[in-house]
Amino acid sequence: MRTPHIGLLEAGPLGGITDVAGVTVGHCTLSDGAIQTGVTVIRPHAGDVYRNKAPAAACVINGFGKSIGLVQIEELGVLETPIALTNTFGVGTVANAQIRAAIRANPRIGREEPSVNPLVLECNDGYLNDIQALAIDEAHYASALDACSADFERGAVGAGRGMSCFGLKGGIGSASRIVHVAGQAYTLGALVLANFGRLPQLTIAGDAVGRTLHVKGDATHKPEQGSIIMLIATNAPLDARQLRRVAMRAAAGLARTGSAYGHGSGDIALAFSTAYTAPHDADFIAVPPLLADARLDPLFQAAADSVEQAILDALFSAETVAGRDGHRRISLNEALKSRP
Amino acid sequence: MRTPHIGLLEAGPLGGITDVAGVTVGHCTLSDGAIQTGVTVIRPHAGDVYRNKAPAAACVINGFGKSIGLVQIEELGVLETPIALTNTFGVGTVANAQIRAAIRANPRIGREEPSVNPLVLECNDGYLNDIQALAIDEAHYASALDACSADFERGAVGAGRGMSCFGLKGGIGSASRIVHVAGQAYTLGALVLANFGRLPQLTIAGDAVGRTLHVKGDATHKPEQGSIIMLIATNAPLDARQLRRVAMRAAAGLARTGSAYGHGSGDIALAFSTAYTAPHDADFIAVPPLLADARLDPLFQAAADSVEQAILDALFSAETVAGRDGHRRISLNEALKSRP
Amino acid sequence: MRTPHIGLLEAGPLGGITDVAGVTVGHCTLSDGAIQTGVTVIRPHAGDVYRNKAPAAACVINGFGKSIGLVQIEELGVLETPIALTNTFGVGTVANAQIRAAIRANPRIGREEPSVNPLVLECNDGYLNDIQALAIDEAHYASALDACSADFERGAVGAGRGMSCFGLKGGIGSASRIVHVAGQAYTLGALVLANFGRLPQLTIAGDAVGRTLHVKGDATHKPEQGSIIMLIATNAPLDARQLRRVAMRAAAGLARTGSAYGHGSGDIALAFSTAYTAPHDADFIAVPPLLADARLDPLFQAAADSVEQAILDALFSAETVAGRDGHRRISLNEALKSRP
Amino acid sequence: MRTPHIGLLEAGPLGGITDVAGVTVGHCTLSDGAIQTGVTVIRPHAGDVYRNKAPAAACVINGFGKSIGLVQIEELGVLETPIALTNTFGVGTVANAQIRAAIRANPRIGREEPSVNPLVLECNDGYLNDIQALAIDEAHYASALDACSADFERGAVGAGRGMSCFGLKGGIGSASRIVHVAGQAYTLGALVLANFGRLPQLTIAGDAVGRTLHVKGDATHKPEQGSIIMLIATNAPLDARQLRRVAMRAAAGLARTGSAYGHGSGDIALAFSTAYTAPHDADFIAVPPLLADARLDPLFQAAADSVEQAILDALFSAETVAGRDGHRRISLNEALKSRP
Repeated sequence: MRTPHIGLLEAGPLGGITDVAGVTVGHCTLSDGAIQTGVTVIRPHAGDVYRNKAPAAACVINGFGKSIGLVQIEELGVLETPIALTNTFGVGTVANAQIRAAIRANPRIGREEPSVNPLVLECNDGYLNDIQALAIDEAHYASALDACSADFERGAVGAGRGMSCFGLKGGIGSASRIVHVAGQAYTLGALVLANFGRLPQLTIAGDAVGRTLHVKGDATHKPEQGSIIMLIATNAPLDARQLRRVAMRAAAGLARTGSAYGHGSGDIALAFSTAYTAPHDADFIAVPPLLADARLDPLFQAAADSVEQAILDALFSAETVAGRDGHRRISLNEALKSRP
Repeated sequence: MRTPHIGLLEAGPLGGITDVAGVTVGHCTLSDGAIQTGVTVIRPHAGDVYRNKAPAAACVINGFGKSIGLVQIEELGVLETPIALTNTFGVGTVANAQIRAAIRANPRIGREEPSVNPLVLECNDGYLNDIQALAIDEAHYASALDACSADFERGAVGAGRGMSCFGLKGGIGSASRIVHVAGQAYTLGALVLANFGRLPQLTIAGDAVGRTLHVKGDATHKPEQGSIIMLIATNAPLDARQLRRVAMRAAAGLARTGSAYGHGSGDIALAFSTAYTAPHDADFIAVPPLLADARLDPLFQAAADSVEQAILDALFSAETVAGRDGHRRISLNEALKSRP
Repeated sequence: MRTPHIGLLEAGPLGGITDVAGVTVGHCTLSDGAIQTGVTVIRPHAGDVYRNKAPAAACVINGFGKSIGLVQIEELGVLETPIALTNTFGVGTVANAQIRAAIRANPRIGREEPSVNPLVLECNDGYLNDIQALAIDEAHYASALDACSADFERGAVGAGRGMSCFGLKGGIGSASRIVHVAGQAYTLGALVLANFGRLPQLTIAGDAVGRTLHVKGDATHKPEQGSIIMLIATNAPLDARQLRRVAMRAAAGLARTGSAYGHGSGDIALAFSTAYTAPHDADFIAVPPLLADARLDPLFQAAADSVEQAILDALFSAETVAGRDGHRRISLNEALKSRP
Repeated sequence: MRTPHIGLLEAGPLGGITDVAGVTVGHCTLSDGAIQTGVTVIRPHAGDVYRNKAPAAACVINGFGKSIGLVQIEELGVLETPIALTNTFGVGTVANAQIRAAIRANPRIGREEPSVNPLVLECNDGYLNDIQALAIDEAHYASALDACSADFERGAVGAGRGMSCFGLKGGIGSASRIVHVAGQAYTLGALVLANFGRLPQLTIAGDAVGRTLHVKGDATHKPEQGSIIMLIATNAPLDARQLRRVAMRAAAGLARTGSAYGHGSGDIALAFSTAYTAPHDADFIAVPPLLADARLDPLFQAAADSVEQAILDALFSAETVAGRDGHRRISLNEALKSRP
């Protein structure tokens, strides 16, 4: 089975979030016995995000999550660091790494200039990864940041290394869509860190496949302790209020894969625009003409479709991984092959 | 084609929101040429809701809507009137009717006692109904209230009379699910006023049926001006914070039918519990032991499944209706029959 | 005692919200025995607000309130009607009046065009006014709208006619401040409908005057059933997210007068900008360079000071009013004169 | 000048947050040349907060802040660690310390049991403290936790060591009030980490003292980079929704000291109740009869008064401190003495 194409909109050439020009993604993967984890970094543009902040907004679909940075994004509507993804107990260390990187680039931070707002989002990879080891260190963030490129791997890599999804191997997935609106073509891309769901819920392009699969040792009967982070980038000119609306549509894509936003799943979406930035020192922020709200439907559809597609991409890209205490998550491909 | 059963949970005996004991529903339907509209009332219990307030919370999925009453519900977490549904331009009049009914029952309101918080939710039925006529009057609310019963009609009735859904005839739908959790069985029911979506989006139990249907005069190319109100009742003991979590899961059921929460669609969910009430005059509110958040997953699943099922119920129950200016919405049943 | 000047910023020439160019205010006052109520309308600009929407945002400080219109403003960040103020049980009727006025001006509303979002905010004037009479009718809205002018009355007029504040006569107050920021001068004005507080809380420019006053029949021992609506206008170029931040600062001005945001007081602030509008039909919204968030402090100070000043203005402007059942609210001026 | 008593309610015997039985506070203070910082820990009860979670809610008054933990508290309404306060760049490290402490006490965390939600709130002490040094390490959290006691120091201690307030020395302050409601006496206490404001704003019990003070090198002309964390504890039986209402009243106390919630000031309030806990493993949460919302006014008043009092307590308790690069913040006491 190949990954089906979701919806009626066409994908961009790379089929990933880096179809949005300027966006890059890098991973640092730790895979050594009981340590199956990592860091993934998404840069909204090639410059210094502290100096040129990217308009952004988050939507907390289910707030069972331990991120850092969302409070200030809600107030000010901008990113001021790259976005980092890691495991739940790596948030503090990656935040420290982001702070140190920002200070290195801007030695006035916390002195003549305000502090910087780190942004780290997380999922719990504790089934495969020995999360109690707090194995992430600051160098892993630096390494993922250095690796950022328009061309990036999907599946059991970076922050996705230890993640599980529908009782199968989850991880990093990505997708993109092109929309035509108001005489313009815009690109919208999604990247997910997929770590949610129980097997019987799994739905692929409307087909409740999960009910037909049998996976040894899957935890169908146990409460979900997963999460999903859904990042959306677009080059459409939108402000923070509109980006929150776009982020909300991640909930639709997520639902179509079978999720009902489980209690223990921190389901968080964040959208940003690359159409302009807010310079750190400016008195005034020059904003391009913004796409009218009444014209947003194609972008909403693209957000829902890209997120659904990105989740499937994570599942189809991820390889089987063995981790701590003999735990093992088989890939969707393997599970599909072993169907009777 | 018969309405498929959504998900793995069983339905209650009535297959509707009134499977939650004490909840009743009544309609007042106006169907006369260009006037195709009405009022639907949902009573959370048989008593005076002002004196015994029902714990409740709303979740605004897309706030393109003109309801009255949600601000206070967010602050205080209780209903203090029955819930009324009507067309967008009927809200003011129905709110007046609710105020007058509350005063009649409680003549101290607005004098020795505080005012009352009317609650009216709405969708725009302007395609079939001459909404500019402001045809709803206060007696229609009274009539729907009087009609409240555990046994109620679905489809093109009450507030649903003039509603459209996926370019087909929409209206009132309902469903219920039984969940077993923490050694108890609970009922959760949903009632929707379905008035959203464009035909190609329509998805029935995962099947993108809408793309295969052809409906004369459907407005696929026009921006959506719909909305959906999704009400959820349960006898599980939950507080307002938890009920907001339950209400959020309506977004999952809605998404599975094909919606990406269109810009012009006021998508609003509201959940209430019948497990206890907050007496108006009490110094203390006696609360039963509340179901732990970590045990909510079955109710979240039931909420998503019931809302999806209720939307399908609206579509399968509604008959073809003709309204203003020769506009006509054919039923899903009719559309399915005319497939090649 | 004359009204003290609050803070260090200077007032505009009119000392009111209409110092913000283009903003006008009109009243319709009902004063006849037990009927002591009215409607006040604030127009953000002289044009049709449906066609040219004003950027706006609200901040609900305490949501014990029955307004209509805030849900959509939170989602879309614009006003599309003038702002109407009235008594709690007049909201439905005034909303109907706004809808009819919008349809008259735009006959495609609810047909080819979306519906319109009425905006009516309220306080409970039930101590002086027979609120159960639902005395407001649609013509009162029209009359207040027609009366809109840069020059308007303060005190016991319009929606303020029957309002009480700190056990004294409340009503309509207004104020303005000029700020210098980023090389520009901006005006910010406030208008309040003041109907909150108990006498011992009353604080004038830091002086706890209320503890020294004795007012016959004041309801110090009774729970507050008041509210305050705080409107803020500015010509500074701000978007909806920033306007919500400005609106939040109304809470500071309100607190300084002695309020702790009582349970039964619907304390709601709403801010709008006159620097640009969002045309109804546009594909793109042209936004002027927005004042950077880091430059907002003078506007925050102006918002807090203007709201405090406007509350004092309401108290010092209002005359003594007698209403239903022999109820009487004496003016602050009268109460101050009768001090021992 | 002695600290004036704010408002008409009486204080508890300790005049601090530990008047709420079971609450304890501990500090770890770093004072060595350019390192002037620390950690303060507040324990809601003597037990393991992960196993017995405390009902809680936050209110973000101005979200210019870098805390960790608030997203989950908003969703679930409980604390599951002690509350930690530190400087802005210490959040990650203190979160790591909280995670490790929770794992030590509960070795199943992140394995058989869900992860734990660290809660660290912060202010920027960069004027006195070399915040770029990231001087906080995990042992400092452990030390503050060990030091927790009902008897604790105020002023330039713990997380308050390097904080500035109104251009003077800020830090830790605390206060309490006793309220009588519904036939019961309840205690409400506040603890603040005060690091906000510019000198001319300073208002003590309504007196705009700040305008009369002259402090060498105060940064009146510079944008505020402060913040304030306001913690409120009470033994009144309230749920998370009600506690959010209580937390909001911190905004009133803060405003009365002169703040207009400056752009760069992360003003965050968090309230918790000691009246009951939510056991980690329970199917049902036993909730005592909750105080009715209509009876909350005395607690709202106590929250506003306690926060104002606690801010004054911080100012009057803090000694003059010299820190990095010759920076020095004189105490309020010293500033008052040097008045002409």
